[in-house]
Amino acid sequence: MRSDATVATRNSRTATDALAHAKAFVQPELDAAVRRISPELRAAVESQLAGGGKFMRAALVLLSASACGADERVALDGAVAIELVHNFSLVHDDIIDGDLERRHRPTVWAQHGISSAIIAGDALATVAFQVLLEVPTAERASAASLLADATQAMIAGQALDMEFEQRSSATLDECLEMVSGKTAALLRCAACLGAVLSGAPDSTISALWEFGHHVGIAFQAVDDLLGIWGEPDVTGKPVGNDLRHHKKTLPVCIAISQGIELPSGYTSSTGTEVTDREVDEMRERLEKCGARQATIDLGERHVRDALAALGRISIPSSPLAQLSAIANYVTERDR
Amino acid sequence: MRSDATVATRNSRTATDALAHAKAFVQPELDAAVRRISPELRAAVESQLAGGGKFMRAALVLLSASACGADERVALDGAVAIELVHNFSLVHDDIIDGDLERRHRPTVWAQHGISSAIIAGDALATVAFQVLLEVPTAERASAASLLADATQAMIAGQALDMEFEQRSSATLDECLEMVSGKTAALLRCAACLGAVLSGAPDSTISALWEFGHHVGIAFQAVDDLLGIWGEPDVTGKPVGNDLRHHKKTLPVCIAISQGIELPSGYTSSTGTEVTDREVDEMRERLEKCGARQATIDLGERHVRDALAALGRISIPSSPLAQLSAIANYVTERDR
Repeated sequence: MRSDATVATRNSRTATDALAHAKAFVQPELDAAVRRISPELRAAVESQLAGGGKFMRAALVLLSASACGADERVALDGAVAIELVHNFSLVHDDIIDGDLERRHRPTVWAQHGISSAIIAGDALATVAFQVLLEVPTAERASAASLLADATQAMIAGQALDMEFEQRSSATLDECLEMVSGKTAALLRCAACLGAVLSGAPDSTISALWEFGHHVGIAFQAVDDLLGIWGEPDVTGKPVGNDLRHHKKTLPVCIAISQGIELPSGYTSSTGTEVTDREVDEMRERLEKCGARQATIDLGERHVRDALAALGRISIPSSPLAQLSAIANYVTERDR
Repeated sequence: MRSDATVATRNSRTATDALAHAKAFVQPELDAAVRRISPELRAAVESQLAGGGKFMRAALVLLSASACGADERVALDGAVAIELVHNFSLVHDDIIDGDLERRHRPTVWAQHGISSAIIAGDALATVAFQVLLEVPTAERASAASLLADATQAMIAGQALDMEFEQRSSATLDECLEMVSGKTAALLRCAACLGAVLSGAPDSTISALWEFGHHVGIAFQAVDDLLGIWGEPDVTGKPVGNDLRHHKKTLPVCIAISQGIELPSGYTSSTGTEVTDREVDEMRERLEKCGARQATIDLGERHVRDALAALGRISIPSSPLAQLSAIANYVTERDR
């Protein structure tokens, strides 16, 4: 799809520039928002945010305002809110998954205990709505409504993810439903939140929503690949964790759909430990049966669908180039 | 304060009627809201809501609309939202406090595990904002903003509560700051949310806010008393739990402020077990030093302050009688 290395490099530069700009623009407001949180929770919240993160969701919010011809400042509080909700979900997910490391650092619960992590996550989610609704306009009410719906869809996806861990198998459709909630819900919200805050027409909002949806599925496909074949030094997470947790990720569900037999320790219900040998065995089988390649293909297909959605509306050239670059970057990243 | 038994009985009837009306009016909408939550979390969420609850917060929301001469239907979604946030806080607090029983039933985490309880609580909090913002008007944006601020204050209070458990003492002022967040924040939000949704003037909103604040402090004073001297068969919670958790409740902080020496197991940091003998000893000392009576007095003083706040604005007689009855009921209840 991107055979020309020069194009790929230029694209990657455009994407990383857009993310760096979002970080520089949003970080001071994010820091200000966090100061609304109780001093007792500040250490836990700051240890979560200190990891940095990609600011991909923030960048999408800002660009979706620019895509409508609006000033990105209109979308600033939306960008802050979406990063807060994203970080809230990471804090709670890490407790649920029992993960000890993220972004090369100990997770909040590993460092501050489960109780503090629960309530620090609650504080992060709540401050998102405080920021967005501080100026109580109808546009911001619509944006907050969209964010609440996306958060609920994300929670539903996480609930499915947990339920699948208990099962011996899941179909690819079930897996895609889970991914559509767990990961894509917040990304499609991000991709149209700036448009909503700009008061853009419904047709623009829905095209950007669809763009974000496909970016979200592609994003998770790559996340699943990195979770199995990534470099822990680069991803900041222990590799093989998804396999150890009996996760029904895209590569695993693709393999199941092809009738590939998985190690018995893997398909038995959670609680049974998956040994290191079984993790290696799984990795090999997923590669051999073509599930790794099929997941790469699925991700690239969704990037193409994302770009097609953008093509349905008229967008100024600079935000168009940046949105396209971010969509492509999603499948090129190594962390 | 209420020496006339007939007045007290009539008052109690008015209060319980208002609560029963709120329950009947709000429950169907609450059930509808819960159906927006993922089926995987439904059992956990429903086990929380099945306990019933007093619907005191919902009643306050409805009455604060009637107090402004508005139809209580204007406040219905606000009443639903506040009950959802209240229940979210109970689900997470029960994990944090390690409590096994509430409302005569096992708590959500005790029945469904910590992971499901975390995410079920998240879903409850989120659906509150979905309900309130489904119609994105400026009034609803203001109401949701107020609810988010109250939720953050409640979380800050809970964080203080946790921090105090680790300490050997806390002053009465510190305790009141904690109670002002943990309990009063949501009650003062409830007491003016209907007014905000009715588009009432700021003077009305602030009087109702103050009313709710004092009701909240009184409510917690009684909760603290019931936690030490209540009948577990009536309260639905094991008695003495607060003492076992080294909680710095109002009676305890009043005793500390009087220089009363507490059992050493109690003042050492959390983790040290407080024995049953020490719980009995504490109960006796708190009674003897007058801390029990001082807490009763403090509660009644705040009820008087609540009624005085109502007196500052003009309210139709029926909602006025019901709001007053609820304020009085708070100190009369046995659960």
